[in-house]
Amino acid sequence: MPSNYRSFRKSVPWLILFLETVFIILFYFLFSGYNASISNISYTDFQDVNNMVIFGFGFFLAFLKRYSFSSTGFNLLIIVLGVQCSILMEGLLVLLLREAKEGDLKIITTAVVSMTAVVISSGAVLGKTNPIQLIVMTVVEVIVFHASRWINKRFLQVPDNISMMHVHLFGAYFGLAVSSRFSEPSPRSEKNASTPKSYLLSMLGTLFLWVFWPSFNSVLADADKTKAIYNTYFALAVSAVTAFTLSVLTTTDGKFRMTHVHSAALAGGVTVCYAAESIDYPWIAMILGLLASLITILGSFCLQRCLNPALKIHDASGVHFTFGLPGLLGAVAQVVLLVIKKWTVLPSLGYVVMIYIGAFCLTISVALITGFITGLILNFKLLKIIPVSKYFEDHFYWEFPHLAVGF
Amino acid sequence: MPSNYRSFRKSVPWLILFLETVFIILFYFLFSGYNASISNISYTDFQDVNNMVIFGFGFFLAFLKRYSFSSTGFNLLIIVLGVQCSILMEGLLVLLLREAKEGDLKIITTAVVSMTAVVISSGAVLGKTNPIQLIVMTVVEVIVFHASRWINKRFLQVPDNISMMHVHLFGAYFGLAVSSRFSEPSPRSEKNASTPKSYLLSMLGTLFLWVFWPSFNSVLADADKTKAIYNTYFALAVSAVTAFTLSVLTTTDGKFRMTHVHSAALAGGVTVCYAAESIDYPWIAMILGLLASLITILGSFCLQRCLNPALKIHDASGVHFTFGLPGLLGAVAQVVLLVIKKWTVLPSLGYVVMIYIGAFCLTISVALITGFITGLILNFKLLKIIPVSKYFEDHFYWEFPHLAVGF
Amino acid sequence: MPSNYRSFRKSVPWLILFLETVFIILFYFLFSGYNASISNISYTDFQDVNNMVIFGFGFFLAFLKRYSFSSTGFNLLIIVLGVQCSILMEGLLVLLLREAKEGDLKIITTAVVSMTAVVISSGAVLGKTNPIQLIVMTVVEVIVFHASRWINKRFLQVPDNISMMHVHLFGAYFGLAVSSRFSEPSPRSEKNASTPKSYLLSMLGTLFLWVFWPSFNSVLADADKTKAIYNTYFALAVSAVTAFTLSVLTTTDGKFRMTHVHSAALAGGVTVCYAAESIDYPWIAMILGLLASLITILGSFCLQRCLNPALKIHDASGVHFTFGLPGLLGAVAQVVLLVIKKWTVLPSLGYVVMIYIGAFCLTISVALITGFITGLILNFKLLKIIPVSKYFEDHFYWEFPHLAVGF
Repeated sequence: MPSNYRSFRKSVPWLILFLETVFIILFYFLFSGYNASISNISYTDFQDVNNMVIFGFGFFLAFLKRYSFSSTGFNLLIIVLGVQCSILMEGLLVLLLREAKEGDLKIITTAVVSMTAVVISSGAVLGKTNPIQLIVMTVVEVIVFHASRWINKRFLQVPDNISMMHVHLFGAYFGLAVSSRFSEPSPRSEKNASTPKSYLLSMLGTLFLWVFWPSFNSVLADADKTKAIYNTYFALAVSAVTAFTLSVLTTTDGKFRMTHVHSAALAGGVTVCYAAESIDYPWIAMILGLLASLITILGSFCLQRCLNPALKIHDASGVHFTFGLPGLLGAVAQVVLLVIKKWTVLPSLGYVVMIYIGAFCLTISVALITGFITGLILNFKLLKIIPVSKYFEDHFYWEFPHLAVGF
Repeated sequence: MPSNYRSFRKSVPWLILFLETVFIILFYFLFSGYNASISNISYTDFQDVNNMVIFGFGFFLAFLKRYSFSSTGFNLLIIVLGVQCSILMEGLLVLLLREAKEGDLKIITTAVVSMTAVVISSGAVLGKTNPIQLIVMTVVEVIVFHASRWINKRFLQVPDNISMMHVHLFGAYFGLAVSSRFSEPSPRSEKNASTPKSYLLSMLGTLFLWVFWPSFNSVLADADKTKAIYNTYFALAVSAVTAFTLSVLTTTDGKFRMTHVHSAALAGGVTVCYAAESIDYPWIAMILGLLASLITILGSFCLQRCLNPALKIHDASGVHFTFGLPGLLGAVAQVVLLVIKKWTVLPSLGYVVMIYIGAFCLTISVALITGFITGLILNFKLLKIIPVSKYFEDHFYWEFPHLAVGF
Repeated sequence: MPSNYRSFRKSVPWLILFLETVFIILFYFLFSGYNASISNISYTDFQDVNNMVIFGFGFFLAFLKRYSFSSTGFNLLIIVLGVQCSILMEGLLVLLLREAKEGDLKIITTAVVSMTAVVISSGAVLGKTNPIQLIVMTVVEVIVFHASRWINKRFLQVPDNISMMHVHLFGAYFGLAVSSRFSEPSPRSEKNASTPKSYLLSMLGTLFLWVFWPSFNSVLADADKTKAIYNTYFALAVSAVTAFTLSVLTTTDGKFRMTHVHSAALAGGVTVCYAAESIDYPWIAMILGLLASLITILGSFCLQRCLNPALKIHDASGVHFTFGLPGLLGAVAQVVLLVIKKWTVLPSLGYVVMIYIGAFCLTISVALITGFITGLILNFKLLKIIPVSKYFEDHFYWEFPHLAVGF
């Protein structure tokens, strides 16, 4: 074990330094200056998305009692690495495929939005991966996600912003596929338990996500940003309400369960993401929010009892039902709404519908396949896999104050 | 007791689902589409107010050591329900009274601002109401507050934004009247105690309120938003300073008391709310802030010793001196400042003054009477009132992790 | 001891009240009305800087296990006092030196930005000063900082915004000089230890600083605000990455150290502050971020082992390596970048370079000398110095809930 740790120590700083050097060199060649061309994204939009990713996910994932340092710390680490990587991918695409270069603010904001996928995936393997594995996963996932978006755009003619909306789906299924290659923690282990304090931290993160989700969806919207904001707000409101209801109905002693509230309150935001700017009436957004919350809590009930044990997947923070299922619902809802709305108008409706369905099937397939491969890569001995007994342990990575009172 | 809880379980989800269904149906009939007409409220304004209500009040009320889940969780629940209810009330008024329809952003922001009243009232009965009672109270209070504003507007010709400024007063006195119908907790009980950790959470909430209060007052301002921002900032600054001073002077051993700092630091924002856009010099706002802090801390001293025991009111989180008294002071200050300013100019000054005084007397009367009635309704057996022994207990409503360490 | 405390109690409220009265009177004479002249600073900029100072520093300094009330509470107190004082200084300069009066939003924002210096200095003596000393220090430092900026502006013709960028340097060296007059805590004392919980609070503060730093630097930028934002973001990203790397390399058992991450992740923002709007390529900002992180962690290693024991300085929260050294690096980098960029173009380059170097040498000298004198003043008996045994103790200043569980 100590030898295991020593070797870990030897690799992680050099891996990071190597990556950072490569990034700086690539930036030198790819970005010959700032490009202040105006886009429909303002600095406030960027700040909101940034807040959401840094605070929201950092604390949303801090619900494990012995893993809060790693949750918030590694979240920061993978985001800053991933954003750089994502900006470089964008630059490479511009260079290689001679695409038009976008404004810098747009590029950075898009990079932060794409990081949602990585952060969601990291949630699926929360506590089981060491920093080396996390960094490798981040780099691979950013590259694959860009590739998947590029395929969507190139071969299915999916608009740029719609290919971006698959970010939750991609993140969730990539993460699930990766997590299938990690062994389950012992069911008697108490390490992956939570305390009321850690749930409160997670509530803080959830509220950050909840509050900034309208900004997130408005960044993804193309034309009608204000409509995206209203629809997202209504969907989030109803899904928060429904979360409380369903939590009481599904728990054995009829009490509220904090994790239900955390995941189902956000489900509306994930689901409405796709159709946010095309829904014309608040009640549609509200029904979507209700369905999203429903699918999340029923999903959490069924998956944890039936599917996950069968497939031997241990989804450490429930990303499947928090982001995966509501994302699926949203993608389907978008198609249904499109069909209803354009039934008589659009001659080529069948074709458009095929494209939309094709796009999300493709995204999920790419996510599952590449996630599975990444899971295999992450288990190479080279990456210093950690033993199951050290899962969910801050102490394994962080120096602790010698007088750790009250933890 | 268990039977009591079982029956509670049977009702709460169906009540919420029923309400949500009614809301969605009403939205279907009342909102036939989005209305992007431009108002003087931006998305950033909405976000600031939303942050303030969700984070600020959620954590401000989380100072009870065993009630932090409920404080933050139920705060979210009543806000999302209340906002929908408030938007519907607005829609109904437009439909029934043929008022002009406002832009959506204005409607949503107004709805979030009105929720301050409900959240303040919920603070007065913090820990004593079950979710069913809270939801009933939310719906009743939103309806009554709209009615009160409508009376103000219709019969006293009070401008829309000034009728809205009574939101703190209304919330505080409605809550006090409701709380008078709830029995006091046993004085020897240690359940409504706080810990340093819970005070820190509450400090986080206080800082959120403190930081976003200028935005709140600027949303309520009609014309001169920037002046409202400056005056609010100066009033808040001085009341924070004064809070520290008075806290040392009033505590028995001359130390700072956290609750004093929490409530008095915000008093300036409440007081200056009314006159924020008409004050021309920072020093006036500063003096108002000083007086607000003074009235809050003296109020907390006197009320808790004399008035509350006499009237048998147990004001669980001190909303009377945090929001009620500074609100009163602000309403009076507005009239005084108006008289001084327009002494020679306005011939009909007496009439205007009467209207202003009438408006806030009316608001308080409506709040007290309807609050008292609501308190009676909330104690119907149907609503599964909880026994005093279960006050201030998260465990009564929330599933707890089986290994609750360090709580 | 009790007598000591009693006398403390007698002085602190009267000192604050006296100061506040003076402030209100001065405001009465100096500010004859609001001045809404338009500047390049928006309300959103002000809010971001305000969030950063109130939340960021308040929680960043809350890492001591027994000092979190004082860290967040006194931070609020000195900021609100200091902002008023700073606005008055600005008003006095306008009056006495007949400078042009700026818009109110600019004045308030500048005042909040200058408070960074005071907050940083208060970090250097964290836990060792009583509120009286803190308040005296705040007032003195605000006055001296304004004087130093004025000298820079008047005699060296340094532009206003560049003289403001020295705020970190000034704060750090002023604080260090002050702290040299305070005795060290006993090395065996466990009071200035931290717990995992307090580190998490500090992480929350760090993230607030990290997220809003681009806004901070853009406020200081004169012309090209967006470039300042990008460069700051890139520098912060790389310094966060480097912080993790170097932390593993410098700790004895090769683990991450939370304090390293906290200080080094912010170093990039401090360093890039000076050159933020003149850097044309992201890779330069990234290298600066890397160097900043490097100098911070090496600095923390060397200073704590060699320099501080030799000079008998106990830098309570490491402001020397978190703000001082990266600030120095930034000032030097600005000169180097200027020389490289304008080598052939500018005939008077040597003169300009002299001015820049002169400005920061002057700022540091003024900070050190006045800081040392302030340290002497703060140790007058009149100010009720606290005994070393009472360092780092919330209980000395704050009333505690009688049932302090889990602290």
